[in-house]
Amino acid sequence: MYCNSLSVIKKKMAEQPIKFGILGCASIARKVSRAIILSQNSTLYAVGSRSLEKAAKFAMENGFPESAKVYDSYDAVLDDPDVDAVYVPLPTSLHVKWAVLAAQKKKHLILEKPVALNVKELDLILEACESSGVQFMDSTMWMHHPRTASMKEFLSNSELFGDLKSVNSSFTFAAKQDFLENDIRVKPDLDALGALGDAGWYCIRSILWASDFELPKTVLALRGPVFNKVGVIISCGASLHWEDGKVATFHCSFLDNLTTDVTVVGTNGTLHLRDFVIPFEEKKASFSVATKSGFTDLLTGWKPKPSEHHVTTDLPQEALMVREFSRLVGSIKFDGSKPEIKWPTLSRKTQQVLDAVKLSIERGFEAVEV
Amino acid sequence: MYCNSLSVIKKKMAEQPIKFGILGCASIARKVSRAIILSQNSTLYAVGSRSLEKAAKFAMENGFPESAKVYDSYDAVLDDPDVDAVYVPLPTSLHVKWAVLAAQKKKHLILEKPVALNVKELDLILEACESSGVQFMDSTMWMHHPRTASMKEFLSNSELFGDLKSVNSSFTFAAKQDFLENDIRVKPDLDALGALGDAGWYCIRSILWASDFELPKTVLALRGPVFNKVGVIISCGASLHWEDGKVATFHCSFLDNLTTDVTVVGTNGTLHLRDFVIPFEEKKASFSVATKSGFTDLLTGWKPKPSEHHVTTDLPQEALMVREFSRLVGSIKFDGSKPEIKWPTLSRKTQQVLDAVKLSIERGFEAVEV
Repeated sequence: MYCNSLSVIKKKMAEQPIKFGILGCASIARKVSRAIILSQNSTLYAVGSRSLEKAAKFAMENGFPESAKVYDSYDAVLDDPDVDAVYVPLPTSLHVKWAVLAAQKKKHLILEKPVALNVKELDLILEACESSGVQFMDSTMWMHHPRTASMKEFLSNSELFGDLKSVNSSFTFAAKQDFLENDIRVKPDLDALGALGDAGWYCIRSILWASDFELPKTVLALRGPVFNKVGVIISCGASLHWEDGKVATFHCSFLDNLTTDVTVVGTNGTLHLRDFVIPFEEKKASFSVATKSGFTDLLTGWKPKPSEHHVTTDLPQEALMVREFSRLVGSIKFDGSKPEIKWPTLSRKTQQVLDAVKLSIERGFEAVEV
Repeated sequence: MYCNSLSVIKKKMAEQPIKFGILGCASIARKVSRAIILSQNSTLYAVGSRSLEKAAKFAMENGFPESAKVYDSYDAVLDDPDVDAVYVPLPTSLHVKWAVLAAQKKKHLILEKPVALNVKELDLILEACESSGVQFMDSTMWMHHPRTASMKEFLSNSELFGDLKSVNSSFTFAAKQDFLENDIRVKPDLDALGALGDAGWYCIRSILWASDFELPKTVLALRGPVFNKVGVIISCGASLHWEDGKVATFHCSFLDNLTTDVTVVGTNGTLHLRDFVIPFEEKKASFSVATKSGFTDLLTGWKPKPSEHHVTTDLPQEALMVREFSRLVGSIKFDGSKPEIKWPTLSRKTQQVLDAVKLSIERGFEAVEV
């Protein structure tokens, strides 16, 4: 019986939370460590770094329990048979090596975005996950906020929103000089996708999310991308076009003030939010919707006006991400379920569009078919 | 003495408000008639229509005084020596004929947007205005809202906003079937610029406004414009590019829910508003700004968050437009001032970009130099 089985899984998971190993001590791993603690169905079990001291310091500073394992290599984490899952926040160029190895060692996998340098590399990772039967999920946290589900409900309502017509998304932040010189995201050998892979990933994901993950037919990079001295993109944009006339644009940059906007316009409705990547506050997030908006008779105001909607959450989006991931891993581990194909599928589509934007830039802003 | 002279002008204008004639009984003329009444320095003096009954009905319904003149032709309004200024809300294809004639008859001129079918036509109008020494102003009302000045103050502040990096603007509305079939804005012989001339005009103006009216170097129409059966644009977009790397995008349409957004991002700050064309309310308008935005240390929220600013106004933006126009006309009439060149200059730049977008569409989305 399903209910019975679920309760059994829940019981098992309460007793045996999913044991996480973390590869490396990236700054973002601090946030995910906290999320693992908060998730209630997973636990911080191991961390590996090329420096044992660094790993130990990370474990101490990030709430790892006394019993946690501290390793002086990533391999050692993957070789620990008690590690159920790994979180991999390594530079993108290392993803294919370590994610494939993790999958081969039967570790379920949360992989930081951008998941790979290109779809070809990603496919190696996804094939390894599939053949090992492990769950894959990228670390796009906002997907897991309850606000995202609320907004999707609005977008799915044919009366309130209608048919999707356009999306505009932007994620920019003003990186400090030190970042622009030294961060892995500006290094061609570490994160060759630069701002497109980092901030653009979110923009592309938000556009695909709004379009129910229907891939655009054509992608065109906007002119004027900015490259740093070693050829890494630090600012760019693109337009995406679907056969039915839907259009989307995005802009991502390391050079502009922090801005994380999504605007989705349909035949009947409009959705706005300005903090789609990370909500302004942890426990409450908002979005604005408008339906069948119009001007007053004499065009002196609006009727109706847009309205604000608030969504509260006990857990931050990153903890909800870990919880959903661990729930899936638990189902596989304790109940023989198959991995949820949704998550690798969304990652792959995002990477496909990202690759197309990059190719369009390389080809002098030509239209690229996806 | 300046103060003395100003007080004399003010006195004269209080006694002798600028006398407006209106050409035609377009729906938008109702709003402008009310604005003329509200402006306090102008008066509804005459209206002309091809039908005397229609003109009389319009005058009665829109607050014209008993003494107002009602004419059965546009010519008669222009031939009335007491008419100081005319408001011309005729279909765009009639602008060049009637605006030039009005200027030749020494009538100061508020011309509805789009001001012309192309820059060549506009130049005929502007030359006529210049040679007659009459004031020209297009009817882009939001330019005159005090909010616009407040926002400009923010954008001009190098500490709060920094250097402009990107603008996104959209003006869409879901036209009803009757509009899509019968409105002058979908007729090739009346308003051949369709949604680009109507809604796109505002988007282009907002982008130019944000960039201190520095023309972009290159304009590219986005793919996927929608045309109606008779070849008029009912949805389109474009990207605009400046040599220093600034980029702007806009989307305008008759097919999407009413959306009027402007987002301006600089190196230090971000400006958002969602009701740039017509504020949600008549007496109070808002905008949101953010400066040196960042995420909290653990990336779990924002610090600082954007803030909302409110601007109140006694008079609606269209009345402030008429008041500014009439003030300029009064200075010319009573004080021998020259026409203010700013307004025709802004109109011309807007039309230049509009022409470039249209040309880019016609050339299959090629880059067009402005």
